[in-house]
Amino acid sequence: MTAIAATPEPPYYAVIFTSLRNPGDNGYGETAARMAELAAQQPGFLGIESARDGLGITVSYWASLEAIAAWKRNTEHLVAQRRGRSEWYSEFALRVCKVERAYTMP
Amino acid sequence: MTAIAATPEPPYYAVIFTSLRNPGDNGYGETAARMAELAAQQPGFLGIESARDGLGITVSYWASLEAIAAWKRNTEHLVAQRRGRSEWYSEFALRVCKVERAYTMP
Repeated sequence: MTAIAATPEPPYYAVIFTSLRNPGDNGYGETAARMAELAAQQPGFLGIESARDGLGITVSYWASLEAIAAWKRNTEHLVAQRRGRSEWYSEFALRVCKVERAYTMP
Repeated sequence: MTAIAATPEPPYYAVIFTSLRNPGDNGYGETAARMAELAAQQPGFLGIESARDGLGITVSYWASLEAIAAWKRNTEHLVAQRRGRSEWYSEFALRVCKVERAYTMP
């Protein structure tokens, strides 16, 4: 995802997921790509931005807290969340935010 | 910054700065390091997380909207903002958010 998300005017919501990985892929790359694809199909999905160089940061944008809660409960996503905790991540933080103001250039 | 920020219990604020760079360094690396150092000295600063692989994402955390506004007006930061617009970034988005909930592992 090397693009800046084209989000609507605020207010909307952001989920900031910051992580440190354990060594080895162990299926992470495939699942991460699938989760990005699946998230984009969910009601209320507005966009996603992702970068990793040691620290990984993925920010997904959503129309409402309900949309975030529904994505969190998605069955395939629940399986990925479990593998994330047990296999892929040594540490993570997930922050749910309300985007109040936004500026873009150009 | 390859560490997850140790932020307090919500609520607090996040500034999500997402950017695409123009080719060449042109003093960017030095200024980026200086801005991270200077931000950390500001009242209300809570932490910063940063990653770039093509897309760059920097999330800084703050105690209040007033702290964010004061940092935005910092003289040295204003100079860097101007160079960012004219030299370093081809595109960026800046989103000011209220962090409502947070989870961490471990």
